[in-house]
Amino acid sequence: MWSAAAPDQPPRPVRFGILGCASIARKLARAMLLAPGAAVAAVGSRSEEKARLFAADNGLDVAATRLHGTYEALLDDPDVDVVYLPLPTSLHVRWATAAAARGKHVLLEKPTALCAADLDAILAACDAAGVQFMDSTMWMHHPRTAKMRELVDDKDAIGDIKVVNSVFSFRANEDFLQNDIRVKPDLDALGALGDIGWYCIRAILWAVDYELPKTVIALRDPVKNRSGVLLACGATLYWADGKTATFNCSFLTNLTMDITLVGTNGTLHVTDFVIPYEEKSAEFSVASKSNFAPLHIGWDPLPSKHVVTTDLPQEALMVQELARLVQNIRDAGAKPEGKWPAITTKTQVVLDAVKASIDKGSEPVEIAN
Amino acid sequence: MWSAAAPDQPPRPVRFGILGCASIARKLARAMLLAPGAAVAAVGSRSEEKARLFAADNGLDVAATRLHGTYEALLDDPDVDVVYLPLPTSLHVRWATAAAARGKHVLLEKPTALCAADLDAILAACDAAGVQFMDSTMWMHHPRTAKMRELVDDKDAIGDIKVVNSVFSFRANEDFLQNDIRVKPDLDALGALGDIGWYCIRAILWAVDYELPKTVIALRDPVKNRSGVLLACGATLYWADGKTATFNCSFLTNLTMDITLVGTNGTLHVTDFVIPYEEKSAEFSVASKSNFAPLHIGWDPLPSKHVVTTDLPQEALMVQELARLVQNIRDAGAKPEGKWPAITTKTQVVLDAVKASIDKGSEPVEIAN
Repeated sequence: MWSAAAPDQPPRPVRFGILGCASIARKLARAMLLAPGAAVAAVGSRSEEKARLFAADNGLDVAATRLHGTYEALLDDPDVDVVYLPLPTSLHVRWATAAAARGKHVLLEKPTALCAADLDAILAACDAAGVQFMDSTMWMHHPRTAKMRELVDDKDAIGDIKVVNSVFSFRANEDFLQNDIRVKPDLDALGALGDIGWYCIRAILWAVDYELPKTVIALRDPVKNRSGVLLACGATLYWADGKTATFNCSFLTNLTMDITLVGTNGTLHVTDFVIPYEEKSAEFSVASKSNFAPLHIGWDPLPSKHVVTTDLPQEALMVQELARLVQNIRDAGAKPEGKWPAITTKTQVVLDAVKASIDKGSEPVEIAN
Repeated sequence: MWSAAAPDQPPRPVRFGILGCASIARKLARAMLLAPGAAVAAVGSRSEEKARLFAADNGLDVAATRLHGTYEALLDDPDVDVVYLPLPTSLHVRWATAAAARGKHVLLEKPTALCAADLDAILAACDAAGVQFMDSTMWMHHPRTAKMRELVDDKDAIGDIKVVNSVFSFRANEDFLQNDIRVKPDLDALGALGDIGWYCIRAILWAVDYELPKTVIALRDPVKNRSGVLLACGATLYWADGKTATFNCSFLTNLTMDITLVGTNGTLHVTDFVIPYEEKSAEFSVASKSNFAPLHIGWDPLPSKHVVTTDLPQEALMVQELARLVQNIRDAGAKPEGKWPAITTKTQVVLDAVKASIDKGSEPVEIAN
């Protein structure tokens, strides 16, 4: 165990344990290596050998990283502050609540749960244990997102938002469509809705400052595989004040990651919101108070392009932010930050409503506020 | 009257008569001056003085342009080949059929009619008279549109289209919202749906090569003024093969002109499809066979930006194309080109279905194929 840092010492790093060696965990391991204030303390897998291979393959110091051959052993490791959980969604309730019960902070992959009730159980366990919860929605932590937030909050630039559209798709190959956990009803039963529709729903909620819609209506004709897992779907969301949002998500079309946000005063476009085209620099464009030029020839003013650079990738910034929160709790007796579980809950509530509408053949589903 | 051109003479220009001095007619007058093969022969308004002022204000040769103080007089002018009709939609059937009956070719502003039955009457009159019909949807004639068409038709680049989204809005000022013909039930009863939703519907049909959707469902909560004229609305369109499209149109939000087209192999984005940001150069972007880069860091390949330049603005290219067709009919006995009325009809059929769905509180409306 580390001892508490004296005031003149740098704070002890926050120690992450990676529970499961999913391919997304490779990206997170790199992020933990890059993020100031964070360290990978342990890897837990279904065998110690798998944990060792993962550590070796991902640039971890194999000698200094504790390698656990069971998930339980990682949870019992006293030198782990935060457990990162990239397991299939079906396993989230069990392992996230177990981690919280052992006093571990939780970084949970999305979709966070199969339904809002399951997420509630996870968050109740975190709350009871006084640990921080954060879902692993990386783009939330890119400085571009903060810059877009500033503009969206600027009533002069964008005004009242009326329409938000989001698309996230990628073209899965045959191997994915046959074998990936995200098409298996017993592992990630929410399919494309959970894996990528999650981001669209989050983007829409982000755009409207997390005001829940009143009504959700799924688009017709969702595509499912033989097991009934969603491969492509979408929905339109309606707010009481007349805002509307539509999203499409699909495993069957080319990589696309759009947010289009239309307000009374301005319009924002971003076409790589989940994973920027390039790691160190990301763009978006804003048209504000756009008029037709005389004779309706061209626009005046033209939209402006915004470029936001970052030294650290968004996932490392996410890890850094979580490490900061955990350090405050661990070393300074702070309370967990309630913003992150609240945002996760709203995302899951809307996701539940979309799923319910899909299951009812695109009947409207009301969301209680 | 001009005499028929001898083979070694340049073809006689096609002579346009402008029927009504709406503000959009100013843009078209300029286009007729710019377009090779076209000339403005006459202007007709409710008074000769208004016609004279229009001619003087828009760079026409007042002495050489015949100025008519009634619409009938312009239709009776033997030196007019084509009548351009920018009148309020309510007047289209009367004046377009009258123009056709006098053997004039017809360039009709959009929305072409209040309903498909009215358009049918116009097209029947054109057909009976053997005159060319074209609606004034300018962006169809931009070389960017042809370039995008090439890519959309390239099954390798874009593949099978699955999702098309389109937004067209502009923020109308108070004067517009109180006084413009486009908010008056007796003049342009289709409001925003007719004025700008027209373009979204056309864009969607264009994207799917004019295959009619099977079902149309209006978005809920359309915005209407006190007279019941639509100020903002939208719809989702469904095809039998699973394609879906959504559009939003509004007089109440910032200028926005998007087509987003997602196919199995590629994605196309254009954000100024109706009126390019700049007159001589227009862009769109295409992402094709996009993959996540290793570790899901960035994209590979990156999307590519396409820039298409044009010496003539799109409305002049439209006039030029119509002049070419009319000249072939007038001077060489050719038949009218059936493609343009067919495209107009499909646009109007979908527009009718959207309107019907709005009127039924967003009930699905089926379109017979």
